[in-house]
This record gives sequence, structure tokens and C-alpha cells, in this order.
Amino acid sequence: MATRSTIMDTNSFRPDMAQGLDRTTRRLTEERGVLGPAYRLFYRRPVHLVKGRGSHVWDADGVEYLDVYNNVASVGHCHPRVVDAIAAQASALNTHTRYLHENILHYAQDILSTMPRELDRVMFQCTGSEANDLAVRVARTYTGGEGVIVTHEAYHGNSALTSGLSPALGTAQTLGLSMRMIPAPDTYRVGAQDGGPSPDSSGRWSAESFGAWMADGIRRAVADMERHGIAFAAFLADSIFSSDGVYPDPAGYLQPVIDTVHELGGVWIADEVQPGFTRTGDAFWGFQRQGIVPDIVTSGKPMANGLPTSLMAARHEVLEPFAGSIPYFNTFGGNPVCMAAAQAVLDVMRDEDTMGNSRRVGAVFKDALLALQSGHPCIGDVRGAGLYIGCEIVTPGTRLPDQSTALDILETLRMNHVLTSVCGRYGNVLKLRPPLVFSDDDVDLFINAMTTTLETLGV
Amino acid sequence: MATRSTIMDTNSFRPDMAQGLDRTTRRLTEERGVLGPAYRLFYRRPVHLVKGRGSHVWDADGVEYLDVYNNVASVGHCHPRVVDAIAAQASALNTHTRYLHENILHYAQDILSTMPRELDRVMFQCTGSEANDLAVRVARTYTGGEGVIVTHEAYHGNSALTSGLSPALGTAQTLGLSMRMIPAPDTYRVGAQDGGPSPDSSGRWSAESFGAWMADGIRRAVADMERHGIAFAAFLADSIFSSDGVYPDPAGYLQPVIDTVHELGGVWIADEVQPGFTRTGDAFWGFQRQGIVPDIVTSGKPMANGLPTSLMAARHEVLEPFAGSIPYFNTFGGNPVCMAAAQAVLDVMRDEDTMGNSRRVGAVFKDALLALQSGHPCIGDVRGAGLYIGCEIVTPGTRLPDQSTALDILETLRMNHVLTSVCGRYGNVLKLRPPLVFSDDDVDLFINAMTTTLETLGV
Repeated sequence: MATRSTIMDTNSFRPDMAQGLDRTTRRLTEERGVLGPAYRLFYRRPVHLVKGRGSHVWDADGVEYLDVYNNVASVGHCHPRVVDAIAAQASALNTHTRYLHENILHYAQDILSTMPRELDRVMFQCTGSEANDLAVRVARTYTGGEGVIVTHEAYHGNSALTSGLSPALGTAQTLGLSMRMIPAPDTYRVGAQDGGPSPDSSGRWSAESFGAWMADGIRRAVADMERHGIAFAAFLADSIFSSDGVYPDPAGYLQPVIDTVHELGGVWIADEVQPGFTRTGDAFWGFQRQGIVPDIVTSGKPMANGLPTSLMAARHEVLEPFAGSIPYFNTFGGNPVCMAAAQAVLDVMRDEDTMGNSRRVGAVFKDALLALQSGHPCIGDVRGAGLYIGCEIVTPGTRLPDQSTALDILETLRMNHVLTSVCGRYGNVLKLRPPLVFSDDDVDLFINAMTTTLETLGV
Repeated sequence: MATRSTIMDTNSFRPDMAQGLDRTTRRLTEERGVLGPAYRLFYRRPVHLVKGRGSHVWDADGVEYLDVYNNVASVGHCHPRVVDAIAAQASALNTHTRYLHENILHYAQDILSTMPRELDRVMFQCTGSEANDLAVRVARTYTGGEGVIVTHEAYHGNSALTSGLSPALGTAQTLGLSMRMIPAPDTYRVGAQDGGPSPDSSGRWSAESFGAWMADGIRRAVADMERHGIAFAAFLADSIFSSDGVYPDPAGYLQPVIDTVHELGGVWIADEVQPGFTRTGDAFWGFQRQGIVPDIVTSGKPMANGLPTSLMAARHEVLEPFAGSIPYFNTFGGNPVCMAAAQAVLDVMRDEDTMGNSRRVGAVFKDALLALQSGHPCIGDVRGAGLYIGCEIVTPGTRLPDQSTALDILETLRMNHVLTSVCGRYGNVLKLRPPLVFSDDDVDLFINAMTTTLETLGV
């Protein structure tokens, strides 16, 4: 079970795949040379999209695709209320936070109303990376420590600081000297591999024993930090552990972990870029599903349906030591247009009940995938919460990850006009994370395409 | 001449100023408590803007202001071509760089065509901070060094890395261990204060002697780095030295400096957030005005008229060691909507000749300010390039900075419905940096308001 060198390379196009592409696609892939080699393009046969509506997108030839990947278009591609809000505000005024504007104040109050009352301050940035970068600085100033703990396959951003906290970027990316990693809460394998807790007689973990095992990982990491003279500052985690491979259950297992973080003097930074904004179906935020109250919350991707917008919320006493002494200005962060887009997204989430849709359709989706399992033993595990589902591809009869088959499935799904990706330490977990307006019909479309794909591949 | 504790505090509103504000303004300033204390609000009597057109903005009471501060709305507030481009693309599709899209490729080629041919790669981010953060990582990977040199009052961003390279944030912000500072190229004071070069008999510096003095600063900084075991990576500088106080002349003085940076094994990162995009009137980029070719170029603010968009361009050989081994994905960076906005801005800059306007109107503006000098000896110096002008406020008959009078001027200008700010090490330089569509009539408006202001204050 070799770990991939980088999670971002899993289903990347490479120039040697250019033969056989149609003329336009080939020209476009060649023109991307000007962007340099750090950019990854999805698929052996890249997709050239030009239009989007709801959970569907179209390529330049008019071919329609089902989008089971894009969480940025959270309320659906090109939602008219968001588009109208952007256009209206962009034609009225776009400035910054050094002047007064109602949009930022209204949105700040509205988004904080979705959080536990302890989280009573919010600041705006443009990207999730910026939010996490700021969150770590705030945590360090509050605790006086430096050390940050993340999980083994975490991804938290592309800035110098956050890329050093993102082992998912691969071995070429140097990790921060003061960071430590703990195993992901891998309910599928962790018991056997890491001396973890034993499942009960039904093969399930209890939240208590699983949480105690994870809390022990925190204790060991902090002990190692202290051995090297590093004071503990924060545990930075996405409560659905998306890049680790999607591990939402058993809900409640994070309570002993946050208690341990606090006991050891650290703060909990909940990276809600992935599980937040009604994605998990049972709460607005992923951490609420786990029943914990973080010290700092960050988000980004789904917040404004594609306009660069992110946030960092915090308890006022945690924010104060940083914010009381250091000015923070983010030229575009919280500007009237971004705030108008974010407000429209939040309004749509309420009016169209995206949380209810995530819960209902997510359950149908997961059940349909579980039903596929019996005829297709390459599907080792199906897990998830709401419209975030991980589907583990393994060597039949074992729990050995089979990345090669996962990538074949991915590429064949793309040829069948379904867009998705993979995640997890071994790059073998199908990452099913559609816009929140995904419907029962979309589930049928996916299951049909998946069935065809599995039969085509004979797996 | 005490240095301010932070450049960002110069003309900030403080809660103890709330008395006397009208009810709405007071409510809005109070509601900002939810944003925490790191945000700065301009003016003793904050401005509540709701509408913008060209170089003019309006507050909620319908009062019109002349905007002599905002470079983000580079082609004018709410330019209809930019608004239309945003609305059209937002209603068609907004995705990311893992799928093919024409917008990013067309814009990449178009923006590189404005640069020297050596700069042949470009990557997109959302903020200038992200661009500078990435640029430093690229420079470090290419050179194998860590050390970065900036000027004494530089501001390069709000990420952990770039805030540590931003002494302008004030003394509460910890600077990076491996960074060093050199004096700004302060043509107004540096000769007397820092053992700098002597001006010629007409009181002017030659580019050669001034550049040699600055290059010597680089040599000393690198020697100090080496003394501490730090290898030199980059000189990160804004070629107009905006937060230092605006020092564009004598044009050509940066050539000996870049030669020295290269001789010592470093790269030159040109932070073009301020001087780029035709602002200086004589070239598209500030570094072109200086006749140098940087190794890396970053920009942000003026690029998409307010949509969060930034870039990092580089020579391919400089980018390769980083980009060839480390994947970089910026969720919103280079997305179709941001690229549509950026393309519209670039098209408008060409079609409306913003460079010509900057040159012409900037010259008229500077001459008009120089004409004010004789009757108002508090104006110690007027300098600038195109539509970026610094106006130094001093104790008459001396070169002693007078921040108190500068702030009084700023606040009185605001009461006379003109928006601007201050910059420089002593916070006493009026920063005149309007949208690039600033007109001759706007210059008249400003000069009238400034004359009234100076007379009101009796300075």
C-alpha cells in the first residue's frame, strides 16, 4: 500500500496523453504551457466546459455532464439569484472594509447566527488558504505556542504556512518544522493497522473508544513537540476529513479529541471548507454534526458560489490578542460584491433548504451505492454524511486500496459524462461531492453511469 | 521624528470618536464590533459609500465624493464593460483550472504580451498577498536560499509569510527571522540621514549615484544574512516604493540594484500591486519605467476592478524548480469570472488609453500641486509618476515630517468631499492615487478642495 507522492497527481493529464485528443482540446492543453507545470488538469482526456446549470455542466461540443465533484457551485452552477446579486452590486459599488458598508455587517451577523453563540467574531478573506493562514496566526498569538497538528493526508491551503501544514501536497512539499501529524480517523482500516480501538461485535466503533484513540494521538504528538521545545498551539482539522478519505462517523468521536486539545493548552481550528454550509445534511456546519464547539472556524469554497470569498470566525477572547495589536486589511476580503454573493448563497440555502436536500438525497445516494456493493466487490466501503460520500475501491475480498481501478472508474465515468475525483491516503476513494441541489434524478443518472462503468471495466 | 507604530493606524476611526456621528453612521460603526479590532476604518467621521461611477463615489445621503485614493477601481468605479463581463460569465459558467477554459489562456497570453519576453509564465491567485507569498516560495526554491530583503516601510501582504516581510504593519507584527531591511530610496531625506550620495549642484540625484547607494544597502544586508548563516533568496520591492512614501525618481536608479541582486545570487521580485497596470503613465509596468527586467512579477489590486484576482509571472527557468515538483491549486484563482473581469479591464485600458491619461493628467496634477507649494510651505515635496503622487507635509522651512498636519489635511479634505490617505515612514505623505480615469476636471476639483483645506487649517 504505497502512499502516492501527491494527492493532486492522482488523475492528472500529462502531455504524453495528448495524442488522440481532438484538435481544440489539444490546442488548449498545449496553450496551458504558459501557466507552468504546477497546475494540474483533470483526466487523460481533459474536459472543456463552457456552461453550467444546477448540478449539470456542458462542454464546448454541447455534451452534458453530471457534476458530482464541484462543491464551489454549492447552490448549483450559475444560480440566478447569485448571478443577479453579483451583477447588481458590481454595478452599484465595489470598495473595501475601510469604508462603512451594510453588506458586510449584515452578512457577518447572518453567518454568525448559524454558529454556536461562543463564536462571536468574523473576518473575511478571499480564499480558504487565507482563512487558515490567518487562523493559525491567531491561534499562535493566543496560545503563545507554535505547534500545529494535522492529519496524515490533510490539505489546508497553498500559502507558505498552510502548504507546510498540507501533507497531501506530496513529499516534494516541505512540511513545517513545528507541525506534527496524527493518523486520520480511518474507520475502515485503522483498527488493524495502527493499534487502534476494537470495533464492537457488529463491526462498528463507539464514538467514545474511537475518540479516545484519536485523543491519544494528540497526546503523543504534543509530547513529541514538547520534546523538541515546541509549545502546542492548535489542532487544525476538517471534521469530515475529506482529503484523508471521508470519515464522518461515528458522529461524536471528536468530543474527547477537542477536550484533550483544550487540556493540553491548544485551540481547535475547524476547517469547514469541505463540510460546512449544509453539506453534511444534518447541520449547517460539520463540527455541529460532531457536537463540538471549535475555537476558530474557517471556510471558503462553497461560500459565494465561485466568487473568491472566505471567512475566519472565532471566539472573541481567542481573536483579541492578535486582532487587538496587529492590523489586518484584505483588499478584496469582505468587499460589497463578494458579500452580496455570499448573502445570496446563504439566502438560497435557507429558501431552498439545501440542508434538507443534502440529508434526503444524500441518504438515497448512499443507499444506492451500498446496493451496488453486492454485485461489485471492488466497492469496499461506502461512507459519508449528506452530499459528501466516499466510495472506497479495493482489491475484492481484501481491504487493500486499488488506486488503479479507482482511476479507471474515474476516467470511464468521465467518458460516460459524469465528473468526480478521488481522495484519501491511497488515492482510491471516489470523492462524491456534488452541488447541494443534486436531485434524486441525478442519483439515478450517477448509478446508471456507475453501473455501466463497473460492467465495462469488469469490476 | 518618531516612526509610527503602524502605517495602518494613521487615519483610523476609534470608538471614542463616535460621539457626534449621525445615528446611522454610529450604528454601523458599532455593528463593526462583530468584525473584531483588527479592521481599520478610515476617518474620524467614517464614510458610508453606496455608489460609484468613474472617479466619483456617493454616500448614503447622496453626497458626492472625489476619489483620489482607490486604485482597485482602476478603470473607474463600476465600469460598465467590466460589470457586463462579470455578469455574462457568471451566468454562463464559473469553475476552476482543473478543467480547460479559454478565458484563462487568452488572458495569460494577453497579459504576458505586456511584459518583457523573458517573463513567459504566469499563474493566478486571488490577492496580492497570495501572489507575493507564492513568489517568495518560488524564489526560495530556485535559489536554495531563505533570505528576503525589503525596504524599511514595505507592505507586501497579510499572510504569515508576507506579513513577516511587511514592516509597515507596525512593531506588534513579528518580522521574519531571515528577512532584512534596507532604507527606502528616500530622495527627500536620505542623503542627509543615511550617509547617502550627494545630489548634484541642482539638488538632484543621478540615477547612477543613487542606485549605487541603494545597491550598497543590498550588499550590506546580504553580508549580514551570511553572517547569520542565511543564504540570500530575493529582493522584494515595489518599484514606486509606495508605502515607503512614493519614490519613483530618478528613473533608472534600480539598474545597479538589480545587477547587485543578481551578482549576489538572488532574484528580483517586482511587487507591481501599486505601480503596475499603466498607473505610472509611461509604461504598463512600474519596473519598465525603471528599465529593468525582474525575475518574478506580482500584481493584484488594479487587475480586475475589484474582483479578487492576482497574478505571479516569472521567467520559466526561475519558476521550474518549484512548479515542476510541487502542485499548486488555487480554487478561485484564474476562474472564468475573474479572468473575464481581468480581460475587460485590460481591454478598457487599451481602448481608453489609461496609460496616456495617467501620463497627461498625472503631469497636470503634479504641476498644480507644485504651484500650491509657494503659498503653502507645509508642502515640502511633491513627487510621483503618472497618477501616483506623494505630497510631503512638513514643518515649514524644514524637512521635518508633520504627521499631525497631514492627518488634519486628510480629515478636512474628507469634510470637503475628497477621499485620500497618507503613507510613508512618518505617515505624513499624502497618497494621491485615484482611479486611472481621473480627469483634468477632477484635478481642478481636488486643487480647489485642497486650497480650501489649507486655508481652513491656516497652513
